[in-house]
Formats: sequence, structure tokens, C-alpha cells
Amino acid sequence: MTDGTTGRYAGVRAAVLGTGLIGGSVLLRLADAGLDVAGWDPDPVTRERARERGLTAPETVEQAVAGRDVVFLCGPLPTLPRTLAQVAELTAPGCVLTDVGSTKAEVAEAADRLGFTDRFVPGHPMAGAESAGLTAASTTLLAGAAWVLCPAPGPATLAFRWLTGLLVEVFGARVVPMSAPEHDSVAALASHVPHLLAGALAGAVQRSPLRDAVLALAAGSFTDGTRVAGTPAERTANMLLGNRDRVLHELAEVRVLLDELAAALRAGDATALTGGYAEARAARSALRDRRFVDLEQAFPADGDHAAEVAWLCGLGAAGGHLTDCRIDSGAVSYTAWRPAAD
Amino acid sequence: MTDGTTGRYAGVRAAVLGTGLIGGSVLLRLADAGLDVAGWDPDPVTRERARERGLTAPETVEQAVAGRDVVFLCGPLPTLPRTLAQVAELTAPGCVLTDVGSTKAEVAEAADRLGFTDRFVPGHPMAGAESAGLTAASTTLLAGAAWVLCPAPGPATLAFRWLTGLLVEVFGARVVPMSAPEHDSVAALASHVPHLLAGALAGAVQRSPLRDAVLALAAGSFTDGTRVAGTPAERTANMLLGNRDRVLHELAEVRVLLDELAAALRAGDATALTGGYAEARAARSALRDRRFVDLEQAFPADGDHAAEVAWLCGLGAAGGHLTDCRIDSGAVSYTAWRPAAD
Repeated sequence: MTDGTTGRYAGVRAAVLGTGLIGGSVLLRLADAGLDVAGWDPDPVTRERARERGLTAPETVEQAVAGRDVVFLCGPLPTLPRTLAQVAELTAPGCVLTDVGSTKAEVAEAADRLGFTDRFVPGHPMAGAESAGLTAASTTLLAGAAWVLCPAPGPATLAFRWLTGLLVEVFGARVVPMSAPEHDSVAALASHVPHLLAGALAGAVQRSPLRDAVLALAAGSFTDGTRVAGTPAERTANMLLGNRDRVLHELAEVRVLLDELAAALRAGDATALTGGYAEARAARSALRDRRFVDLEQAFPADGDHAAEVAWLCGLGAAGGHLTDCRIDSGAVSYTAWRPAAD
Repeated sequence: MTDGTTGRYAGVRAAVLGTGLIGGSVLLRLADAGLDVAGWDPDPVTRERARERGLTAPETVEQAVAGRDVVFLCGPLPTLPRTLAQVAELTAPGCVLTDVGSTKAEVAEAADRLGFTDRFVPGHPMAGAESAGLTAASTTLLAGAAWVLCPAPGPATLAFRWLTGLLVEVFGARVVPMSAPEHDSVAALASHVPHLLAGALAGAVQRSPLRDAVLALAAGSFTDGTRVAGTPAERTANMLLGNRDRVLHELAEVRVLLDELAAALRAGDATALTGGYAEARAARSALRDRRFVDLEQAFPADGDHAAEVAWLCGLGAAGGHLTDCRIDSGAVSYTAWRPAAD
């Protein structure tokens, strides 16, 4: 990451639609990196705030996206298909479109239906905060984040490559390539079910006659375990509804474990309970102790890209990520980190 | 909090039995504050490490507790009743005994059975970390922590008052007075059920074929929601088993909320789902926005202390805590913070 105009992407003209917490952070960082970037938000007060921060924030979507090379769609999930159709209409065929929504299959299907898969790359940066809005946004919120991008064969691969390089260069992103359905299954466990558990715990405390005493004793486990219950309720509801079946499926898997732990506790079975926690702790150890090997992989720049997409999806499924993508004399070369075999 | 010998408690001789994460942090802070303190741990390597850090760490429990004014019992929960009996035998009747276990009813009942309620004050500092052992302990882990002490009428009240002043002065503790059963109900929601949810989530990820990809995308909600699943499995199991019935009861309450959220999601009912999250968010807002009023309350230093204990337990149940306790010319006066009425 550099401040000031970035090398490969100098002169790129970008737009960000929806400048809340995530969109605002995308906008701020693109501007910081020296790109020509315009932000638009449906809320006039937010547009005014953006201007006060020295950002370009025109009055209309049309003005914001005119002549841009890339548009980040950062509005609420339910609005994305409509915005996608609108922006595709307003921009040139070479303009790359991406989004930052927390579920991917729905918007990917919409893009397919609308016929924009050749230049729409579904995306999801894994970052967030309890707060919301442009005032909570920052140039650093997304720095170094895991950022899912969904590759697809055909012309979409070109857009994927270009966007990967941009995200690496401007955000220092760890780009995780995944198919949209794979992302949604993984995000169900990595994010959506945790939101459900946090909501249930915080809601039960809110209803409990012990609430005030619980808040007085709230230390790490409660504060950590309910943090995401502080995010705006509607945003969380949209996220869960946008991935309903997968969330319910993974919730059922988590309930199996919860039932096992509760049964061991009810039976006073210390061995089973300790065993259950040893299994849980292994996931934490795996998270903490992950080791990576770096690798390089090249593909022909042209062709149908099927092998390239298969390799990319395999890398993401294995827990790896891209660290760069460069195109040179007829070949595309990726550098990546992949978890080391134990 | 001061460094160097503390005023009111200068010359106090303390002992800490069990110098893991919590006991080690108690030991380090007491030493830092200039008290004469000895630490003992059943593990010879830990004793040696304590000596390397300049601490007094004799070879036997007998040596550690001889002539002490206060003994902190910081061993594993199942060992506490036995250690309590042993230490009561080895110390003078004026020596105050307390523990730092994460459940209180069981050890309070043991003290009652053994006849040590007059000088044993059950305690629980609300702090922890994923790590364990003396190497992870620090002088600051407990600084400013909410620290539950269980008051009881009769001579135990004197021990409670004295210990409250010590914890405030040495640790900057927010002393939360609560009966042992009340503590255990509150801790079930504030800590034990969160440990169950974290264990179930981390365990499900560990079992999932998506594990490596989930770890790659793990951002706030997963990392936060599983953090306590990284604590030593046996410690967590002991904690849950020591509070079994209350944990299962509160878990059932949390499951009610989880079922409601899941039903709203399954039905695609955005209104119900948003409503559920609004309720959950209210608990987070209450935690963040709590306002306190400070108050003072005096009681006769002598008598049966029933009114004093009732006031103390009422303060803790309301989410308040003590900020000091002083005894002066026949009266005890507490200063406290209590949540302001909305």
C-alpha cells in the first residue's frame, strides 16, 4: 500500500455507491491512495459530510459513475440487484463492477439473470464494526482484510484479475477467491451463525430479570460474544435473510455440538465435557497457529480460463489467498499463500 | 492504586495458593503494591519461575501461609474445599480467606459445612485470558476489574469489609457484593453460557469440511465469538460443572431466543428478525450507555450486620459496585456506584 497515486493503477477512475461504514471506508482509502474517486449516497446529509471531508460526492448516481473504470456497489443487500442493473446501463462495457455485500449467491444470480456476469465480480471484504455510517468509516478499516472475490470463466476472469491487483495494491487485501455458493456456506459459519448466537445471548440478557447484574459482571466472554449484536438490526436481518438456507443448515451443525456439550454437562460427565472443549480449542489453535507456504501459478492470459478459475476456487477452499496478480506477455501470474500441510 | 507500600494496608502479609493466570496476577500485583506476599503452586517449575521473577515462593503450603493476614485460594475449583480446610487449620482465626473461583455456591456451602464462614469471603474477579499459567499472568490483568465478593451476616461481615478495602486499594477493583447463589445465576449468563456457545461454534467449525476456508475468512464475529473456546478445556469443564443447574437453566433461556430468531429466519419474516435484533441490541446499548450515580451508605460497625448485608446484596443485584469501605469511630461507611434510573 502506498499513499499518493498508486503505480499500476494510477489514473484509474473509481466510484463508490453507498458510503456507510464499508463503502465509506472503500471511498476514503481509494481517495487516500490518490485515485480519482467519486462517492454517492442516497442520504443528502451523508453526501454533504463526504464533501466536508474533501471527497467528491456528486448529487446523482449518474454523475458519480460517469466515465468510471470501476464501481463499488456498497448499498444494503436488498438494493444490489436494482443498483447493478442501473449502473450497468450507465457505464461503458469495460467498467468493472463489484459489490461488498455479506452474501454472494443472490447477487451473483441476479447478475447472471441480468446478463452482467462478464464484468461484475461479486466481492466481500471481511471487516466490520459495531458502528455504522460514514462517520465510523476509516481509511484503515479494510487494510489487510481478507477480501472474497468470486471468479468466473469467460470475460469475467479479466475483471477478476484486474480487481485483484487493485485490491492488493490499494488495500493490502488478502484476496480469497471463492465461488459464490462456497462463500455463502463458509460465511454462514464464519459470520452469520455467530451473529445468531450473539443475538440470542444478548436478547436473553435483555429479557432476564438479572440483566443489570449481568451487565455489571460482563467481562470478556459476554462482551466478546455479543459484540456483533450491536450492529444495526436491519443490516443483520438482511444478511441472514440473504443466506437463509445455508445459515439454518450451519446453525443445525452448531446445535449438534451445543446439544453434546449440554448433555455432557447435564450428565456431570467431566470427561465428555473436557473432550468437547478440547475439540473446540483445536479450532482456535488452528486459527492461531496457521502456517502458510507461498506459491506462484501462471495461466495463459487468453482462453476460456476454466483451469484458472478451478485453481482459484481450490485455493480459497483450502484457506489460501492471493497476494498479487500480474499480466505479462500473454500470461497471467498469481502469487498466493496456501496453508501448509500439517 | 499505588506502587510501593500501600497506606491503609501497609504491613499486611498475604499469601496466594495456586499461581496460574489469575493467582499469578494476584501475586504479582500484591507484590507490586509493596505487600509482603508469598506464592505457592503445586508445580515446582512454577515455583521456580516465581522466584526467578523475584517473588517469594516457598516449597510448602505451610511455609506460604504461616503468619499471614489474608490468603487467596487460586487453585482449580474442585480443589478449593480441601485447600480451604487445610489453610483454615494452618492459619490464625483472624486470617481472612478468600478464593477467586468462577462459581461460588459450591465453595460457600463447603465453607459452611466446614465451619469457616466467619472468615472466608467467597470471591470472583471477572477477568481472564485465553492463555494460562504464571507466564501469562500480569500486574495489570485484574486492574479495575469487577470483583465479586459474597457478604454474609455475623463475623464474616468484618472480613468482607476489610477485604473490600484491600481490593479497592491494591487492584482498583469495582467490588460487586452478591450472595453466592445470585452470583452463580448471574455468572451463568455473563460467562458460563457464553463459554458453551463459543465451544459449540468452535467445535462445529473444527468438524466442518469447510474448516480451513472458515478460518481464512474469520473476522470479528467468529474470532470474538470463539475466543473463550481457547481457554484450557479442563478449566472450562470445571467451571460449568460447578454451576451445572444454573447454566442449564440460563442456556434454556438463550435457546428460546435462538429458536425465535431461527423461526423468523426460516419464515423469511424480516420484521420479526429485525425486532429480535433490536431487542438484542438494546442489551449492548445498555452496556455501553450505563450511567451511574455515586452514593454513600453508613452502618453501625457492630451488631448482626443483617441490614448491611441486605443493602450490599441489593446494590450488586441492581448492577452497582463498591468503590470503598472505611471504618471510623463505630461506623462503617461504603461509597458505591449504582446505575442511574433511566
